[in-house]
Amino acid sequence: MTTTHPVLDASFASDNVAGVSPEILTALGRANADAALPYGADPVTAQLREVIKETFGHRAEILPVFNGTGANVVALQALLPRWGAAICSAQAHVNNDEGAAPERVGTVKLLPRPTTDGKLTPADVQAELKALDFVHAAQPLAVTLTQSTELGTVYTPEEIAAVADLAHAHGLGVHLDGARISNAAAALGCSLSEITSAVGVDVLSLGGTKNGAMAAEAVVVLDPDRVAGTEFIQKFSMQLASKQRFISAQLLQLFGTDLWRRNAGHANAQAAKLGRLLAEIPGVTLSRPTEVNATFPEAPARIAQALRERYLIHVWDTASSGNPVLRIMCSFDTSDTQIHALLECARRA
Amino acid sequence: MTTTHPVLDASFASDNVAGVSPEILTALGRANADAALPYGADPVTAQLREVIKETFGHRAEILPVFNGTGANVVALQALLPRWGAAICSAQAHVNNDEGAAPERVGTVKLLPRPTTDGKLTPADVQAELKALDFVHAAQPLAVTLTQSTELGTVYTPEEIAAVADLAHAHGLGVHLDGARISNAAAALGCSLSEITSAVGVDVLSLGGTKNGAMAAEAVVVLDPDRVAGTEFIQKFSMQLASKQRFISAQLLQLFGTDLWRRNAGHANAQAAKLGRLLAEIPGVTLSRPTEVNATFPEAPARIAQALRERYLIHVWDTASSGNPVLRIMCSFDTSDTQIHALLECARRA
Amino acid sequence: MTTTHPVLDASFASDNVAGVSPEILTALGRANADAALPYGADPVTAQLREVIKETFGHRAEILPVFNGTGANVVALQALLPRWGAAICSAQAHVNNDEGAAPERVGTVKLLPRPTTDGKLTPADVQAELKALDFVHAAQPLAVTLTQSTELGTVYTPEEIAAVADLAHAHGLGVHLDGARISNAAAALGCSLSEITSAVGVDVLSLGGTKNGAMAAEAVVVLDPDRVAGTEFIQKFSMQLASKQRFISAQLLQLFGTDLWRRNAGHANAQAAKLGRLLAEIPGVTLSRPTEVNATFPEAPARIAQALRERYLIHVWDTASSGNPVLRIMCSFDTSDTQIHALLECARRA
Amino acid sequence: MTTTHPVLDASFASDNVAGVSPEILTALGRANADAALPYGADPVTAQLREVIKETFGHRAEILPVFNGTGANVVALQALLPRWGAAICSAQAHVNNDEGAAPERVGTVKLLPRPTTDGKLTPADVQAELKALDFVHAAQPLAVTLTQSTELGTVYTPEEIAAVADLAHAHGLGVHLDGARISNAAAALGCSLSEITSAVGVDVLSLGGTKNGAMAAEAVVVLDPDRVAGTEFIQKFSMQLASKQRFISAQLLQLFGTDLWRRNAGHANAQAAKLGRLLAEIPGVTLSRPTEVNATFPEAPARIAQALRERYLIHVWDTASSGNPVLRIMCSFDTSDTQIHALLECARRA
Repeated sequence: MTTTHPVLDASFASDNVAGVSPEILTALGRANADAALPYGADPVTAQLREVIKETFGHRAEILPVFNGTGANVVALQALLPRWGAAICSAQAHVNNDEGAAPERVGTVKLLPRPTTDGKLTPADVQAELKALDFVHAAQPLAVTLTQSTELGTVYTPEEIAAVADLAHAHGLGVHLDGARISNAAAALGCSLSEITSAVGVDVLSLGGTKNGAMAAEAVVVLDPDRVAGTEFIQKFSMQLASKQRFISAQLLQLFGTDLWRRNAGHANAQAAKLGRLLAEIPGVTLSRPTEVNATFPEAPARIAQALRERYLIHVWDTASSGNPVLRIMCSFDTSDTQIHALLECARRA
Repeated sequence: MTTTHPVLDASFASDNVAGVSPEILTALGRANADAALPYGADPVTAQLREVIKETFGHRAEILPVFNGTGANVVALQALLPRWGAAICSAQAHVNNDEGAAPERVGTVKLLPRPTTDGKLTPADVQAELKALDFVHAAQPLAVTLTQSTELGTVYTPEEIAAVADLAHAHGLGVHLDGARISNAAAALGCSLSEITSAVGVDVLSLGGTKNGAMAAEAVVVLDPDRVAGTEFIQKFSMQLASKQRFISAQLLQLFGTDLWRRNAGHANAQAAKLGRLLAEIPGVTLSRPTEVNATFPEAPARIAQALRERYLIHVWDTASSGNPVLRIMCSFDTSDTQIHALLECARRA
Repeated sequence: MTTTHPVLDASFASDNVAGVSPEILTALGRANADAALPYGADPVTAQLREVIKETFGHRAEILPVFNGTGANVVALQALLPRWGAAICSAQAHVNNDEGAAPERVGTVKLLPRPTTDGKLTPADVQAELKALDFVHAAQPLAVTLTQSTELGTVYTPEEIAAVADLAHAHGLGVHLDGARISNAAAALGCSLSEITSAVGVDVLSLGGTKNGAMAAEAVVVLDPDRVAGTEFIQKFSMQLASKQRFISAQLLQLFGTDLWRRNAGHANAQAAKLGRLLAEIPGVTLSRPTEVNATFPEAPARIAQALRERYLIHVWDTASSGNPVLRIMCSFDTSDTQIHALLECARRA
Repeated sequence: MTTTHPVLDASFASDNVAGVSPEILTALGRANADAALPYGADPVTAQLREVIKETFGHRAEILPVFNGTGANVVALQALLPRWGAAICSAQAHVNNDEGAAPERVGTVKLLPRPTTDGKLTPADVQAELKALDFVHAAQPLAVTLTQSTELGTVYTPEEIAAVADLAHAHGLGVHLDGARISNAAAALGCSLSEITSAVGVDVLSLGGTKNGAMAAEAVVVLDPDRVAGTEFIQKFSMQLASKQRFISAQLLQLFGTDLWRRNAGHANAQAAKLGRLLAEIPGVTLSRPTEVNATFPEAPARIAQALRERYLIHVWDTASSGNPVLRIMCSFDTSDTQIHALLECARRA
């Protein structure tokens, strides 16, 4: 489970194979001066709080945490009582890739809805509402969306608002897993608040790690009236850092400057370029548009094989043609050189 | 809960108010090269695994995690079945300062034993064994010790062995919360294995953060036959970092060199010096010997007050004299200048 | 949530609206003699243990519990480690009607598979196996089947064996929710062991309440090598009765005589009769064969409405014709008089 | 764990070795007429609701459950948020005899306080309040008392009020484990409300099983403003009976008549008589007054041994004299004949 793959190039496998933005390393060094109170009572975190209010509105409160699963599970617990359940896409990270942490740590039952594009719709929410007040069923009291989704798609502000409006009309809270929210905002050309606080998101998992940070995520409470006990939950969920200033410093560098947009925009642009050039290779087509930093080429077996002999690239699906669909991800630091090397590898096959 | 204390000096409040060792910052920069597989499948973690085997024996396996509570809760779950409970000191960090994470995340009931010095004895273990096989009681199937303890005391290797032998004789596993194990080893002048793998500890929470790291702890499995599912437990306990190389780099720098001992030795020495000099001030006595990096002076009210007007120092207890007992902690970077400033403040009062 | 429906007849709403078999009431009186040790150390439970071994084989061990959800959640925990998940039908009672008790009490993630007839197939199991050893996913280490299913269908012994063989080949345990296992065995004309211990079921939730008992279910361990800690789990899952002899007396009366088969056979026969006679009414068709004690007529709206003005009958679905599909259940005590009254009501409409 | 003790007489071992009051068996038969809606929507439960309002006040709401552990764990969850903890006596049943169900099922950390007589005092509550708002500690947001206590002592109404007043003044809820509340009320000569709703108890575990029922306990919410989600919690805690009318019938018979007081009064009187007569035997003294239905004689070893060769009587403690202290319990059906047989056995030794 922990074997290294010495012969395979990790680039393109995911956006968590990248290192750390130089600006963020510098910020960590800067934060390393003097003694500072632990657990968020430090000046860097104080500064971050201000930036978050500027970004998401004055009611926004940030709780820096270690990782995305931690952010999601803290957020869902803060939004839900013991008897609550969360409607999600069947492809959601919370449902498939968090080791059942929501259920095990948070006692949160997930209510997965099949989707074709990873996006929940008002109809999905509506279909689960029938369980409300039915004492035998876990109570659907929250919706959790992922932006951008696990399938590389992006919700428009209107799509989020439609789900949130229906949710709120029935008393449900709205969580957004924003592990890649910067990529979505960069793709939409909008601000972070335009796809969160402005359209009804109550609690946000704000991602930094996949966008150039070392390990920096956060729970951002957008509507404090919808949550309870968030700080206590963060603590017992083991997501309260003692030297919190060093998480805050990363987030401050990302969101207190335009680094979040630059990094995400670069990753998106490189994925778009890569997709476009791959599609020029005879036999290769894109199985879906490249909306953010992942491109999904459908490639003849010999090309897919050549790529996978060199790169640790995931086969995402099998196309109706029988050809494999690959997921190729770009990062904040994906270079043109790397892209051309991959293209060369594909072209030669 | 998150207020900063602008007028108070955070130094001496705890060993988590310190920043990061320069060597560790450098190591982080060094780890930031090239793409690397996530979740521990990277070369830095591979190197750390070797260092851990050299340090604790060839059966030792390391799982880097984010924080000490995470390490403890993963370790206890790996050691215990669903129906298991862990005997601990009533003063233990797991019992008082982890927001009930062992119970809530791990379903681990704690069986706290009152102690005067923070140390569990074989008699404590013996007293709880009566519940074994009694179906109505949580089953005492593990012991958890803290080294050095929350009261600044240190178990000798013999003391650990005595508890571990009794535990093993009855089928119980032995966990050691080593958030400050480096301070203990430095104080005892022994190796890390002499107070762990050599004396019956089955699973160790290995601390780095309080000894100069940024955020780096680990579960170290010493007897793999006593645990199960550790990697899965780490995942659903939300303690599996994607860019794990950056935790590993910190631990590698600490334990792959003598940095752990230098840092801890410095903190211990400064605490000893501070205690000695404080005790020379008329009216001040040490309420207990300074064994590691905390000193516990009992000081007249006016001195205690003067110190607490400048420093964020905890009142630990009230002595029989009625005077407050303070806890003053030193860190890897506590300087003589800081010590003299504090002494000056006390002397003036 | 707790409103009574004074004007509606509860008959046919479910098989839990019935009372208690007279033989069972008598058995309760018989068990009420002398003092008896609590928690299963009584002579009635001793006798039940023998009957269960005769019924399911000499390795079988019974733990009487209060209700079906309790039996399922104890069984799944006994079968699964902390990191385990259970593959189930999306229509399963454990997934929809137990208030997320498996997840909340048992930390068991459910992996629901859509089915048309409520029955899991080897292909369903196969599809989930890809998550085995993938550290980010809850580990699919058990399969849970329902016999007879929530859709009134029955697994043949061969169908169970096929799922169990595949499960065992990959190290998964097999649980069977037998809340209505008596109905299934009566329908198949087989013994209880022929659809459980003989075909690879490792742990059984043995139902009594829906078949004429007052409140009597049990966990029956069929393969003790596949479970661990069952008695401790039963205790902390709050399913260990102090005066256990009174649960055991009910189960002893059911399974130590042919009462289980008589009661279930009667319910099945009445449902078959009712279905057949309903289908003779113009416009009414059966949407599926009546395999056990539920019949699912598709009826014109005016007939459905007439029935639902008098009876608390659930609308199960909407047929492709647009007509409602009703679920009508018979019990061990459904009389011909009741059936004719219902038919009369339908015919008049 | 499940061995029978054929040679030992179970009488006097506990009050759960007794059978069922004849009136209650009759009530079960009476409830067994016609179909009735499940899960509490039946006429018997409706009647019980009225009786409970008459007994405890018009705000009181009852949720019948299966057993005492179930009642306690549902009640504590309803009273506490995810981050809450409950202050209890170290000798409390919830702390020692419920297999850690409060922690495991309810995520409720218990904060045990040592006591000499099993009774919590305002000082105990005061001592734990320091953790309020300290983010690292489980939050002490409830107190749980046991009436009568595990040591056979009884809180006066004033004692309960003193604890409840302090608790409420700091925002804590008050739970009372009334597994033997009938014995306490009978001993005090007061009504049930005088030691619950009238003195600040917010939620009560109302016991029936130990006082002549078969399996009938309940959560009684006395202050609905202090709890949330009780019905959903009852469901996922697996304490919602389908044929609930049969639990309700038992409670209705007990609390809708004076049966509760007659049964408990008899048990108390027999224990008092037994204690008095035992204390007349040379060498035997009572280690504490017999307040309810348990008497605690300190007896010379040969007498203790003679009794324990015939009866399954627990050694509770060792007196300062070195003699064992036995716990001998009487039940609603303990006869004079049984008492004289035990006395004869003791006298002969």
